[in-house]
Amino acid sequence: MKSNRLIYLPLGGAGEIGMNAYVYGYGPEDRERLILVDLGVTFPDMDTTPGVDLILPDIGWLMQRRDRLEAIFVTHAHEDHIGALAHYWAKLKVPVYMRRFTGTIGRLKFDEFGHPKDAITIVEPRPETVQAGPFDVQFMPVSHSVPESSALVIDTPAGRIVHSGDFKLDENPLVGEPWDASAFRAIAAERPVKALMCDSTNVFSLHPGRSESTLRQPLTDLIRAQNGMVVATTFASNVARLRSLAEAAQAAGRTICLLGRAMRRMVSAAEESGVLTDFPRTVSPEEAQEVPRGNLMLIVTGSQGERRAASAQLSRGKYLGLEMKEGDTFLFSSKTIPGNERGVISIMNAFSEMGVNIVDDNGGLYHVSGHANRPDLETVHQVLNPQIVIPMHGEHRHLREHARIAMATGRKSEVVTNGMLVDLTGDAPTIAEYIETGRTYLDGSVLIGARDGIVRDRIRMALNGHALVTLILDEGDEVLGDPWVETMGLPSKGRSGADLVETLEAGLASLLAASGRKLLRDDDKLEEAMRRTLRQVAMEEIGKKPEVTMVISRLSDE
Amino acid sequence: MKSNRLIYLPLGGAGEIGMNAYVYGYGPEDRERLILVDLGVTFPDMDTTPGVDLILPDIGWLMQRRDRLEAIFVTHAHEDHIGALAHYWAKLKVPVYMRRFTGTIGRLKFDEFGHPKDAITIVEPRPETVQAGPFDVQFMPVSHSVPESSALVIDTPAGRIVHSGDFKLDENPLVGEPWDASAFRAIAAERPVKALMCDSTNVFSLHPGRSESTLRQPLTDLIRAQNGMVVATTFASNVARLRSLAEAAQAAGRTICLLGRAMRRMVSAAEESGVLTDFPRTVSPEEAQEVPRGNLMLIVTGSQGERRAASAQLSRGKYLGLEMKEGDTFLFSSKTIPGNERGVISIMNAFSEMGVNIVDDNGGLYHVSGHANRPDLETVHQVLNPQIVIPMHGEHRHLREHARIAMATGRKSEVVTNGMLVDLTGDAPTIAEYIETGRTYLDGSVLIGARDGIVRDRIRMALNGHALVTLILDEGDEVLGDPWVETMGLPSKGRSGADLVETLEAGLASLLAASGRKLLRDDDKLEEAMRRTLRQVAMEEIGKKPEVTMVISRLSDE
Repeated sequence: MKSNRLIYLPLGGAGEIGMNAYVYGYGPEDRERLILVDLGVTFPDMDTTPGVDLILPDIGWLMQRRDRLEAIFVTHAHEDHIGALAHYWAKLKVPVYMRRFTGTIGRLKFDEFGHPKDAITIVEPRPETVQAGPFDVQFMPVSHSVPESSALVIDTPAGRIVHSGDFKLDENPLVGEPWDASAFRAIAAERPVKALMCDSTNVFSLHPGRSESTLRQPLTDLIRAQNGMVVATTFASNVARLRSLAEAAQAAGRTICLLGRAMRRMVSAAEESGVLTDFPRTVSPEEAQEVPRGNLMLIVTGSQGERRAASAQLSRGKYLGLEMKEGDTFLFSSKTIPGNERGVISIMNAFSEMGVNIVDDNGGLYHVSGHANRPDLETVHQVLNPQIVIPMHGEHRHLREHARIAMATGRKSEVVTNGMLVDLTGDAPTIAEYIETGRTYLDGSVLIGARDGIVRDRIRMALNGHALVTLILDEGDEVLGDPWVETMGLPSKGRSGADLVETLEAGLASLLAASGRKLLRDDDKLEEAMRRTLRQVAMEEIGKKPEVTMVISRLSDE
Repeated sequence: MKSNRLIYLPLGGAGEIGMNAYVYGYGPEDRERLILVDLGVTFPDMDTTPGVDLILPDIGWLMQRRDRLEAIFVTHAHEDHIGALAHYWAKLKVPVYMRRFTGTIGRLKFDEFGHPKDAITIVEPRPETVQAGPFDVQFMPVSHSVPESSALVIDTPAGRIVHSGDFKLDENPLVGEPWDASAFRAIAAERPVKALMCDSTNVFSLHPGRSESTLRQPLTDLIRAQNGMVVATTFASNVARLRSLAEAAQAAGRTICLLGRAMRRMVSAAEESGVLTDFPRTVSPEEAQEVPRGNLMLIVTGSQGERRAASAQLSRGKYLGLEMKEGDTFLFSSKTIPGNERGVISIMNAFSEMGVNIVDDNGGLYHVSGHANRPDLETVHQVLNPQIVIPMHGEHRHLREHARIAMATGRKSEVVTNGMLVDLTGDAPTIAEYIETGRTYLDGSVLIGARDGIVRDRIRMALNGHALVTLILDEGDEVLGDPWVETMGLPSKGRSGADLVETLEAGLASLLAASGRKLLRDDDKLEEAMRRTLRQVAMEEIGKKPEVTMVISRLSDE
């Protein structure tokens, strides 16, 4: 009989920021009992995933081993950690464990999908312990930009693992539990930490992270100094920030209105789960219309420039009866995630055209990050004193830098990206296997594979345009009429000045006139010849080769 | 007879960064003689302009007044100022004036297009003066991130205008002329400046700009400290930076190799035009392969992550026989332009996977901007003391902020964006007219209008996929066979689990079976009904409505 081993396999989140999904296993090789930590999404973009609604991890590996999966643990309520759960739960059907706030959000999602709410079990923080096969799992509160974020303390027969989740070291986070070094020291004192899987997002930020509480005074000063309406945007899930903004507005004597479904949902989930008890009174958009502009503060969704969120809506004009005007102020209490710059800048310029004053991050006065910076990571390494550090939650460059830092203090480390199955049984991590992982797209209402070629075809049509050719042949393989061309996404005239479609049709007609029976009888060869001719004529006329779809119809004798 | 007026009309570059094209006119209303300053391009992106090669200003307004256009002046050799010139010159055929280095680049482009090289006249700096109708134009050297950038001093019967071009205040720019406050003071002393049209790019940068010369020591220290191969990227046209990098490499005892056509072209144009006399000796890529890695420095194109440039090529593997390896260093001596983050980050991660050390801007140690920061703009306002300041070369938010600063010191100002025709005759600018302006796309080899709908169709296909339907009807309006559906960019199976194409065909067949003769006889109504049915069935099956192209073929009696 094979001996037991302890394994770690990221299916998402390692080598990228987003789409977190981490598998742990313990048992004899290929018979390990498994748990999954987090099941998140990442967001599509026009460059690589046009038309896609959401990107989920490919859980094929896990599906094939579903009978060995004991449970799913979700560290916190951010979409990149919880967003894929409801989409996949029906395929996995195992118990899910979360803390109360995360569970409130999770159950709302389960409800929308028609999943049973009691599939999600609410767990109290450590010392409460969930037993899942060979794993004993505890939720350890950490501070982050969403309430009740947690690290997991995972005990296995092969040793103790700490999975950091997303965290920062904030001694006064306003909402949720502060960083408590002694509580972390106790984890290591109780049982030495074999391995720390650790958030790497901010490894390139060299100064210590700043507390959420440092924003309060600057925000109050800023809002007090404005005469017009003040509108602030941040992530809906950053409940502490919503509170800071609302309290600053209140201190400035303003009435508060929350705009955007996600934001109202987060605040009520936070109140329902008890993490938020004293949020200032808010009014509805209808009521807000009656408040003088100088006494009004809107807190709105869309800090990343999302087209359908409240910020973008307001930049295009009236939204729910409310409208930005000259002399108003718009505050980005947020950082733009790389890749979202164009959308954010376009909103800024639209506001500028309205005469609205735009205030952005401004050297950190109005925003702090939710992730641990490099010195904070070093502190956590030191406090937990793990034998092994495996960086996670980062692009390759973040993981590599984080591993370098860990090794600099004599710890074992390895850059582990999605699909690398690591054996943690020994004193150092070893790569045991490379698993094929990937991405699954939610496209409309359908899940499609990233490698199915569907999105690749869309990108090609977007780059090259699309030409369609229809040809009808009679029973004797004679061409009926002429080949017919339709185009989409191509110019109407080419270099010759003639109509492009006519030029393409003439090119195809010449080909057919010069072709013998043999070609006309063979669909594949005929298609190939027509495609080549069309692309060649197009290249001459417009300097690009379109995608081509060919429909050859043959009339039968019946 | 109407009195003369002095007008200003940006056709590009005002309300955006890129695609600069500014018209000045003097004379009776609608009979003004015109000059054009700069004729640049901007670059496409997948979000808004998939498949497009270049974006040019729409010069329709100018074409209609071609007989009134006296000349074109180009301030410097950056693509956003010169890039559209060769594309449009054959339509305008007026004399073009540039300084020597710009002219060297311009003539290379004219040569490629088969335009006569002598259409470009080389002009020496002020006091040399070009007379163009009612305009006397002088080139005034300024420092910028390309050699021989110039402001223009434009004298008109209605007063003196200074058009800043792109500039910074650098007293030691290494290549090209330093900022010379006394020379600028002389301009205003000679004749008061009525209006300053001024670069706004860095109006949000609050510290004074830094000199190119401050980079030399940090670059030398950095390169000296490396053991492996060092590769640095920057804009090819930043000849001063190329020189700083090459000299730092030389000081570190390294052999230099330039990679990328644009970079070699810039260096030889700089040498040919005399602005660069002592560039260190370089070797070819073939020779570089023989140099030990620790003694080699590559200076390469692609600082913005461009897929076909040398940086991206090296991030994908071997390029011209050269390859990055573990322990090598890659330096971004550049800033990422907003919108290019994804491409740059993807290159960084590819290098990280190779074990290459990545050094980026790093708080300005290895890069300085080529544009004047806010305090520098204030200095220029003060030195030239113009009555009017019109901000240009900026997005709306930059123009607005720049106008605010100008007005704070008692000057007249106005936010003027593309298409706003401004009358400068009086003491303050007045908007005289709104001209319809736009963008023209170079798409393959064809120029298409931004509003032609071609690119919109491509975006729609990318988001929604494309379905095409073929239907054949006989002479008696009877359907022959079944409707035939082909799809591109759509999933093969929908919610029902059945083949999507078959489900769509079945839906259309049901429609046809239930339809009367009347519908089958009317192409438009038949198309409309089939399109609606297809989109409805698709919505049910896959949750999205594809673009549809319909081909109805009717067999005739002949």
